[in-house]
Amino acid sequence: MTYCVGLRLNHGLVFMSDTRTNAGVDNISTFRKMYTWEMPGERLFTLMSAGNLATTQTVVSMLEEHTKAAEHRKTGIMEAPSMFLAAQMVGEMVREVIKSSAAGGLQSEASFGATFIFGGQVAGGAMRMFMIYPEGNFIEATDDNPFFQIGEHKYGKPILVRAYDPDMSFEKAAKLLLVSFDSTLRSNLSVGLPLDMQFYAKDSVKKGYEKRITENDPYYRQISDGWSNALRMAFDSLPDFVQA
Amino acid sequence: MTYCVGLRLNHGLVFMSDTRTNAGVDNISTFRKMYTWEMPGERLFTLMSAGNLATTQTVVSMLEEHTKAAEHRKTGIMEAPSMFLAAQMVGEMVREVIKSSAAGGLQSEASFGATFIFGGQVAGGAMRMFMIYPEGNFIEATDDNPFFQIGEHKYGKPILVRAYDPDMSFEKAAKLLLVSFDSTLRSNLSVGLPLDMQFYAKDSVKKGYEKRITENDPYYRQISDGWSNALRMAFDSLPDFVQA
Repeated sequence: MTYCVGLRLNHGLVFMSDTRTNAGVDNISTFRKMYTWEMPGERLFTLMSAGNLATTQTVVSMLEEHTKAAEHRKTGIMEAPSMFLAAQMVGEMVREVIKSSAAGGLQSEASFGATFIFGGQVAGGAMRMFMIYPEGNFIEATDDNPFFQIGEHKYGKPILVRAYDPDMSFEKAAKLLLVSFDSTLRSNLSVGLPLDMQFYAKDSVKKGYEKRITENDPYYRQISDGWSNALRMAFDSLPDFVQA
Repeated sequence: MTYCVGLRLNHGLVFMSDTRTNAGVDNISTFRKMYTWEMPGERLFTLMSAGNLATTQTVVSMLEEHTKAAEHRKTGIMEAPSMFLAAQMVGEMVREVIKSSAAGGLQSEASFGATFIFGGQVAGGAMRMFMIYPEGNFIEATDDNPFFQIGEHKYGKPILVRAYDPDMSFEKAAKLLLVSFDSTLRSNLSVGLPLDMQFYAKDSVKKGYEKRITENDPYYRQISDGWSNALRMAFDSLPDFVQA
């Protein structure tokens, strides 16, 4: 499995992804699931993926090829006139890759499906973030639904729902995401450290702060241990039930 | 879906179940999922169920029949010499019911499967709690794994893992379960109020305190609102991330 979250704040985007991939519990590996393409001042795209690793890596490689090969550049995301059209290109690519795997006539025990979070900005347009489905269609983060989770989303959702605030700082948002990831890491073995984190400041149109968070990261340890204590204190602060 | 939790404390058991059943999101109903059979001083069994409603109701009805009809009593759980043998009887019944539904040759879109939590005590034996699988086999709650969740278990698990204590009072355990249920109720529409709660005091060998908790229950409201605030305060008490 996987866990990735994209958070849309009023002043930017925050991305976090784990790095564990597995084919059964006895076959785990570390793979990056966060990719960025940028032309500073002109465009910045960050993509996170969950699902079949062959599918997601092919999509990423194809996007990569298209940004490099001259004959493809006209049709690649680096030439897309808007975030919306770039998301459409990624969506079409996802659909094509899945279709061509499935069309091989070979059946796989695992599905070929994959889901993506795709966010960023093209200069002159708005900062936007999308969730792209295996079918290639997508939805956008809005004020009513300001974050996307892909992969193992359940354990880490309650704190996101309760503590998210569109005006929170990047520093507070990083804390929120680490708490959400910590709850997930403790409950699902197929989500694993290290984590990749990236900030995007609205209208900067370039890659912002970036960090890989490992198991021994002092801040991660502080949050992980501190959250257990804070939760227990929060729990103790509520009145006990009274039999009546 | 469904959410039920059975908690094994050093001095007793606590059971909580929701009451929502659904066949699609446009067809929801309220059904009790917690059943108790007792002969005070001799035996007490409480059963909670998740899964196909036709399967779980048939299992409950058959257990009910077996406790009433004289010719069945010899083979029913009310005659079982121990918790272990009672659990085996329930497991065999579950397997039979599922097998006979599937053997009709009719395919159902939904699965016939169901999972159960079965706890209690037979006088002279130990208090025990089991989780019974659709295949009829079962596992027992132990010190290492002192609670069982069936149905939608993910949203409500992080707080159980962190705040459970085998020596906690019934009153504190009731609070813990309400917090766990509240997180689940907020995230999964197929888990719904009212909730049924029951305490079993070790070696009492009779039904303990019991309550149906409705949406307007003052204590439930206090926990539900209070937990959101307490969580936000816990979150604020941790240090923010620092870019470095």
